[in-house]
Amino acid sequence: MSPHKNPIRRIWAEERAVLNGWLSISSPFSAEIMASAGYDCITIDLQHGAVDYTGMLPMLQAVRASGVATLARASWLDAGSIMKILDAGAWGVICPMINTRADAERLVSYVRYPPNGTRSFGPTRANFALGSDYATFADDEVVCFAMIETAEAMANLDEIVSTPGLDGVYIGPADLTLGLTGKRYRTGFDREEPEMVEAIKRIITAAHKAGIRLGLHNGSAAYAAQGVSWGADLVTVSNDVRLLAQAAQNSVVEFRKCAGGTHISLTTGNATGY
Amino acid sequence: MSPHKNPIRRIWAEERAVLNGWLSISSPFSAEIMASAGYDCITIDLQHGAVDYTGMLPMLQAVRASGVATLARASWLDAGSIMKILDAGAWGVICPMINTRADAERLVSYVRYPPNGTRSFGPTRANFALGSDYATFADDEVVCFAMIETAEAMANLDEIVSTPGLDGVYIGPADLTLGLTGKRYRTGFDREEPEMVEAIKRIITAAHKAGIRLGLHNGSAAYAAQGVSWGADLVTVSNDVRLLAQAAQNSVVEFRKCAGGTHISLTTGNATGY
Amino acid sequence: MSPHKNPIRRIWAEERAVLNGWLSISSPFSAEIMASAGYDCITIDLQHGAVDYTGMLPMLQAVRASGVATLARASWLDAGSIMKILDAGAWGVICPMINTRADAERLVSYVRYPPNGTRSFGPTRANFALGSDYATFADDEVVCFAMIETAEAMANLDEIVSTPGLDGVYIGPADLTLGLTGKRYRTGFDREEPEMVEAIKRIITAAHKAGIRLGLHNGSAAYAAQGVSWGADLVTVSNDVRLLAQAAQNSVVEFRKCAGGTHISLTTGNATGY
Amino acid sequence: MSPHKNPIRRIWAEERAVLNGWLSISSPFSAEIMASAGYDCITIDLQHGAVDYTGMLPMLQAVRASGVATLARASWLDAGSIMKILDAGAWGVICPMINTRADAERLVSYVRYPPNGTRSFGPTRANFALGSDYATFADDEVVCFAMIETAEAMANLDEIVSTPGLDGVYIGPADLTLGLTGKRYRTGFDREEPEMVEAIKRIITAAHKAGIRLGLHNGSAAYAAQGVSWGADLVTVSNDVRLLAQAAQNSVVEFRKCAGGTHISLTTGNATGY
Amino acid sequence: MSPHKNPIRRIWAEERAVLNGWLSISSPFSAEIMASAGYDCITIDLQHGAVDYTGMLPMLQAVRASGVATLARASWLDAGSIMKILDAGAWGVICPMINTRADAERLVSYVRYPPNGTRSFGPTRANFALGSDYATFADDEVVCFAMIETAEAMANLDEIVSTPGLDGVYIGPADLTLGLTGKRYRTGFDREEPEMVEAIKRIITAAHKAGIRLGLHNGSAAYAAQGVSWGADLVTVSNDVRLLAQAAQNSVVEFRKCAGGTHISLTTGNATGY
Amino acid sequence: MSPHKNPIRRIWAEERAVLNGWLSISSPFSAEIMASAGYDCITIDLQHGAVDYTGMLPMLQAVRASGVATLARASWLDAGSIMKILDAGAWGVICPMINTRADAERLVSYVRYPPNGTRSFGPTRANFALGSDYATFADDEVVCFAMIETAEAMANLDEIVSTPGLDGVYIGPADLTLGLTGKRYRTGFDREEPEMVEAIKRIITAAHKAGIRLGLHNGSAAYAAQGVSWGADLVTVSNDVRLLAQAAQNSVVEFRKCAGGTHISLTTGNATGY
Repeated sequence: MSPHKNPIRRIWAEERAVLNGWLSISSPFSAEIMASAGYDCITIDLQHGAVDYTGMLPMLQAVRASGVATLARASWLDAGSIMKILDAGAWGVICPMINTRADAERLVSYVRYPPNGTRSFGPTRANFALGSDYATFADDEVVCFAMIETAEAMANLDEIVSTPGLDGVYIGPADLTLGLTGKRYRTGFDREEPEMVEAIKRIITAAHKAGIRLGLHNGSAAYAAQGVSWGADLVTVSNDVRLLAQAAQNSVVEFRKCAGGTHISLTTGNATGY
Repeated sequence: MSPHKNPIRRIWAEERAVLNGWLSISSPFSAEIMASAGYDCITIDLQHGAVDYTGMLPMLQAVRASGVATLARASWLDAGSIMKILDAGAWGVICPMINTRADAERLVSYVRYPPNGTRSFGPTRANFALGSDYATFADDEVVCFAMIETAEAMANLDEIVSTPGLDGVYIGPADLTLGLTGKRYRTGFDREEPEMVEAIKRIITAAHKAGIRLGLHNGSAAYAAQGVSWGADLVTVSNDVRLLAQAAQNSVVEFRKCAGGTHISLTTGNATGY
Repeated sequence: MSPHKNPIRRIWAEERAVLNGWLSISSPFSAEIMASAGYDCITIDLQHGAVDYTGMLPMLQAVRASGVATLARASWLDAGSIMKILDAGAWGVICPMINTRADAERLVSYVRYPPNGTRSFGPTRANFALGSDYATFADDEVVCFAMIETAEAMANLDEIVSTPGLDGVYIGPADLTLGLTGKRYRTGFDREEPEMVEAIKRIITAAHKAGIRLGLHNGSAAYAAQGVSWGADLVTVSNDVRLLAQAAQNSVVEFRKCAGGTHISLTTGNATGY
Repeated sequence: MSPHKNPIRRIWAEERAVLNGWLSISSPFSAEIMASAGYDCITIDLQHGAVDYTGMLPMLQAVRASGVATLARASWLDAGSIMKILDAGAWGVICPMINTRADAERLVSYVRYPPNGTRSFGPTRANFALGSDYATFADDEVVCFAMIETAEAMANLDEIVSTPGLDGVYIGPADLTLGLTGKRYRTGFDREEPEMVEAIKRIITAAHKAGIRLGLHNGSAAYAAQGVSWGADLVTVSNDVRLLAQAAQNSVVEFRKCAGGTHISLTTGNATGY
Repeated sequence: MSPHKNPIRRIWAEERAVLNGWLSISSPFSAEIMASAGYDCITIDLQHGAVDYTGMLPMLQAVRASGVATLARASWLDAGSIMKILDAGAWGVICPMINTRADAERLVSYVRYPPNGTRSFGPTRANFALGSDYATFADDEVVCFAMIETAEAMANLDEIVSTPGLDGVYIGPADLTLGLTGKRYRTGFDREEPEMVEAIKRIITAAHKAGIRLGLHNGSAAYAAQGVSWGADLVTVSNDVRLLAQAAQNSVVEFRKCAGGTHISLTTGNATGY
Repeated sequence: MSPHKNPIRRIWAEERAVLNGWLSISSPFSAEIMASAGYDCITIDLQHGAVDYTGMLPMLQAVRASGVATLARASWLDAGSIMKILDAGAWGVICPMINTRADAERLVSYVRYPPNGTRSFGPTRANFALGSDYATFADDEVVCFAMIETAEAMANLDEIVSTPGLDGVYIGPADLTLGLTGKRYRTGFDREEPEMVEAIKRIITAAHKAGIRLGLHNGSAAYAAQGVSWGADLVTVSNDVRLLAQAAQNSVVEFRKCAGGTHISLTTGNATGY
């Protein structure tokens, strides 16, 4: 087995892709439910999720027992927030909207301790959740993903992926489509437009050429599996909001179909008959 | 349209069965998601759900905008808790473990104002959520369900269903099965054992004969539809925990199947290569 | 100055009536605002207020700095809840729906330590908020009010007020009116009906004859002042919900009146004009 | 009726001024109370209010049922925070301390999707609260206000108001007075100093000349009405903190006045007389 | 190794005493810190602790990863609360103030499913935290302790300890001392009075004679170790509140002693020198 | 007595060093416990602590009653966050990672109102917690500390300490050691390496020469006392996390030692013997 402490790095060392679950509901119980579903990794979304630091902390705690790796998507390239995510015991961070080499370098600097970066020392919960010797392995184990999701990032792709200390790039297909094609197409994931497929493949190739990992956000298991076949090293499928909303709607539709035109026929007697 | 203010009573006035969603996760956002799924009514479970009063309040607020009716299952036949549920603006209450006529009479008394009962006056949020004239219609609109789920309740069934002021009985099939048959069968809903089907039908008949409504807890849409065909006036299908857990597991399984034996093959370059 | 530690007892020792504020919103900040308004005492309402234990605790903490006494109205005559209120550092408890001497004796027993009662020992926050020597003075300083608000309580009035260890009775005029007169009159406080005024005065007389204090819930300052003139020892005026709702509505009405038929007239230029 | 989905734009389309309520207490219940008071719009203040994202979310949910529009004042010109406000389902944002054209352009870019701006796509709750087709109308409906409240902003006023995509400017009279006149005058709203009145009018004129809206923060209904007469398109009157504090203080003062020198006179009997 | 799933039963099967930590602060992080300290078991105190259900749930989640067993002390012998504790995934319950055989039988009935008791079925979080097959082992694994802490309980001791289905009795020395000796002695744990030592030993003997376990609450490690030497099967030492308060006070005292009469001497320059 | 309202400034006026406690657990109860321990000042750590704004607010409220001064360490040099800390009623701010004169000037500008700085006016809770005349004294009383903890800051030390309006610099020995010496030494406080002791003394000298205060973070009371002897004006000793973790571990170790090889020997009878 890989000597890595971070489960993500262990899976990669076994040459397998990481299946990632995604949390946008601020609830430690829904987090615990998701962590039991079989994902390799769980990401808490502080950007578009309805969650911030206060909500994230008990979610990280609730997921810990499952042994699943945890990441958080930061709300922005913001030093204070990103360092708090790591101090809280996440195994890594996904940062949105990295558009330039300078952005990527700032991101890396927030994630690594001096002399590798400028992260401030104080892993308050990480010491309890990930090991009291956290200081000795953090720089080697914590994972740092930069999101590629704008036209500007595409223009700077090679400079970004070659940033020293960056572990991977993560593709946000919804934003990338808006950024590259404006409002021509529907919003969302699982792009089938040739120009978007080509853009995704170009990013995968650039990442691998630079020796770093590639993450891809997906709406369906099938597209995620296709992403792996294209070379993705970490794939996210859907999120808690969509899974719950879709399952509930399916259940309602199925009931309406089963129950058909069934009407109840009841002669009310004493109900509320004071 | 029915002049009723409580959506549940309006649907019943139209001789339709109420489709009820069930919330066991303490989160106003998951509540809002569930309320948008097409249910007629949403019940917050303070008994077996991972929710108590503190969690229920913002969930009731989050559901309000949907126009869907709200119920809460009380944790027990407890005056203070049941009155707090109603003051918080729920349209009614489902009370577990009503085993005798005396239990049922206590329940009704907690739900109605004098002289119909002993509910204390102070509808603090109900005044905002359900109408500033709440005092004038509460006794006519609030819905009161007693759960029938033990052998003792079955023995006292006719006395319970004929309790003045009771609006309905609600069948908890998991407990009822434990209560009537011990640990002979699997736990859970959607009973197929002839003795359990017969017990359910007997409760439906007794309720309707007494002129009150019948609620049935179900695991699947198909069973719920069958319940309606048997005469159920309100049917619950699954809950947020099971919907989310099952949807997530299905997604993981589907991915594993799609991704097959796909392995990634990557020569790591500069990642974490300080 | 009175040697009492409980500010309520100090004020009574000075032969003054206590002006009590009432909290139904679960927010430590609104509690801190209310505590700064000049009340002698603040009561957190766990019965009809939208607050439970989880919300009460930080409110007690936020009020502490003001030096104002704190009470809580319990949700019901429930041993566990009442003892938690006192352990949390409230200076006393108001218990709703005390209808018999037995009820009153149970209430007193929950509030006093053996051999005076059956309160369990563990004043976890009270030790910090009220003094590390809390155990030595709690039984002498904590205040215990029983609410008189039903026809049954009126029938048992003399037996209730003479319960050893009871410090006072508190009149809930809304429930008392429902209980004594049914739905004949509007709900609410500040009763003017002769039979209700007479009932209130009868309770005051009975309490004072038994040597205990009298609390009265009021909707307006004027009625509260009248209550003091009748002999009330503690008077509550309105609550945070009504104060805020009324102030906001007044402000809106005043604006609409001031702004009159004023219409804006603007030629929109570049707004949202992409 | 205007085809607008955002109630603010509908009111403006009717050539009426918007009356805005202001929330600084982090409580979904006080938010629901305020939303019922008759305001056209409710703003949650993440800058000076005692609220942040965690508190804002259930407040937005609680207000939703009222049909009143919701805005949030961001704590600062910060991309991550502003986008989270919009994803949470607010109909718009008021951003403090916009001092230059560059500030205003950054603000607009955070609020609009490419190619109009750089907002990242993921309207997680907005999809539920404002419509599942949110992506199709967000750029046309979301409202974007820049606060003018410093000497620097006044110097750059014309450049700011003409920023493409900006919907309005919002005047913060307290800061503007500090910024323009230092500590010469009292702090606060409802300025009567001629130089401040002139500054306010100058901003109104500049905004309207540029074809955008004008918002004004006020302490009193009368001043707000005057603001409308000057041309303000949205006026805020006071906030929950001041309304509650003032109403409580008024109530206490009125009681003290009514109760006069009234002293209680009671011979204590058995109280605490163990 | 013992085939038990509950770590408490595993330790007992190895004929070792269980060292129990005690949580009275409502914080999942302090719970996680305590769970890492080396205790065999952690109890969340819903009676005298400043915690209720809302606080307990994320604490149970935070402790889960440590593999340490979890108990909760219920606030009272209350069916709804006790069943919620177990549904939340605690491995057992300690119930205060069990004074009679009837109390003990009610307690057991709340903890076991029919036909062993009357627990209602719905282990919502227990299914995730303790195993999806929870229904099959819950009755055999969940631990049920009755507290012996009053004179009445001592009088009924033999009847209580012989209650079928009871796993143990737990001694609350502070209440027991109050109950047996009134206010003659200081309140608290670690009793040295011969009559109290004798009472404790009498309970241990009675419990063991009845074949059940004995838990003892202690203030110090030394007294707890003595308790084990007397036969205690589970011993609690102190709690988070006392550990933190004492450690902080010690630190302050040590600093004051070290710093002695040291005074600073500084000529302030430009600080706040506008 | 010093006319200062801020207790920190009063203590300094008496030429005494301030003993500071440090909070990293998000709990108003643990904050209240810490505030009672005898510290002169309490700092809530929003950077490495497991706390953000939502958690800080009730902690500030809980500490207020103790009369102890409150500071917060900001998560970063971020205008919105720092101003929210002050509006929430903290007596001052400690800002991490101030590396240049420009950083220090930005920090000061966030903390002072125009014309001294750019702080936006709206002291929502400060008005209640620190005085309704807060506006008149805030600039004179609020304390502003810049952290010196990098090689870059050391290079710019004299420029930083001479920043007008800065009240002090605060040494973070863990980061400073990483910054000056890389990973050569263990991480943490209480440095004994000659080069680190020299660096600390150099900062103290530079601060005092510039007429500002010096704060020092310490792990032990002894080191803190030594810091005072070196000239430190404010010293922090440990924090709640370490105090609790260490006290719990000590207690467990002591028990294991006392209990030795003691084994229990019990013949289980009816326990779980259904």
